[in-house]
Amino acid sequence: MKLYTSSLAPNPRRVTIFLAEKGITVPTVEIDLAKKENLFPEFLRRNPLGRVPVLEFDDGSYLAESVAICRYFEGTHPEPPLFGRGAREQADVEMWNRRMEYEVLGNVTGCFRHTHPYWKGRIEQVGAYGDLCRRTLEERMAWLDGEIAGRSFIAGERFTVADITAVTAFDLGRVARIRIPETLANLTKWYAAVSARPSVVSTSPARKSA
Amino acid sequence: MKLYTSSLAPNPRRVTIFLAEKGITVPTVEIDLAKKENLFPEFLRRNPLGRVPVLEFDDGSYLAESVAICRYFEGTHPEPPLFGRGAREQADVEMWNRRMEYEVLGNVTGCFRHTHPYWKGRIEQVGAYGDLCRRTLEERMAWLDGEIAGRSFIAGERFTVADITAVTAFDLGRVARIRIPETLANLTKWYAAVSARPSVVSTSPARKSA
Repeated sequence: MKLYTSSLAPNPRRVTIFLAEKGITVPTVEIDLAKKENLFPEFLRRNPLGRVPVLEFDDGSYLAESVAICRYFEGTHPEPPLFGRGAREQADVEMWNRRMEYEVLGNVTGCFRHTHPYWKGRIEQVGAYGDLCRRTLEERMAWLDGEIAGRSFIAGERFTVADITAVTAFDLGRVARIRIPETLANLTKWYAAVSARPSVVSTSPARKSA
Repeated sequence: MKLYTSSLAPNPRRVTIFLAEKGITVPTVEIDLAKKENLFPEFLRRNPLGRVPVLEFDDGSYLAESVAICRYFEGTHPEPPLFGRGAREQADVEMWNRRMEYEVLGNVTGCFRHTHPYWKGRIEQVGAYGDLCRRTLEERMAWLDGEIAGRSFIAGERFTVADITAVTAFDLGRVARIRIPETLANLTKWYAAVSARPSVVSTSPARKSA
């Protein structure tokens, strides 16, 4: 088994944090996105969409999509549960992970991709869409601050994949000059606590690029 | 238990198809999106994001997000499995469902919301982004056509939640004048076959609005 990953990119980081929380070690191969190694023919054979991460199995088959890879490891290593336990809790974690993807990570990514110079020439940028994402994200941060009042983690009292998605999103946001406003006390407190976890510290893009 | 839904909207339809495939009946309450009932205070109490569907439990708690609701019912009614069986198959279904969400439904929705007159005045439209989604979708349809060559369904030989996401997306696409090109023979064949399933026929927006 081998994990093709890019240690500075947000989606691969979700898997790396997940594995660290589970205590699982998987051999990795670093794909250099700056050199567009993800678009090399041998990589496109693994994932024709040219995206990292990709998990290669010993039978030569592949699995793409960060959350699909996480879910695979949840199945093979159930403890600690990061997708919840039992039908209702698993559904609640799914809801919160999706909300973090669509409301937070999606808007951060939209803002980053459509407004940041890094993407100029790499993708077709629509600045007005990036600006819309930034404004939407501001509303969503205020909503999220209210939702998590009185609880330790995004989906309740347990750290889950929803926290992984959210912290990865906010860390990516820093690149696009997105900050959690200090006035959002619950979100600020959550971000500080989750950012101090060993799995999050050891995979920090700031640390990796230093 | 009660399902707040809107029978003409794509995300609620995913849940309705899922329930029909499972043979589960849940009492429903229709939320009229044209009348903005999803933004009425009593609805926002159920889901502050103002989105349908929402599942209300008998203890007064709520579950939002279509796939979270589907996953809840997969847990309580495992047969037939629509999220796969076992760690690897479940991961593969997750990958394909996410690919259908991000590559197909996401681009259809982006095109529909940012270019269709229905959304004018309802959201801030960025036409250039909608056009980009339309062009991206054309590429993704060609990619998908190649991926499903020689198999019956999106994720393999079994009908899964990935097929539900994809058929719902392509049906929504019709509203935005998106069609699967006839030259994409595999995708055309898959679409015809899946569109004939009773769960898909009975929830068709064309039939509902007639």
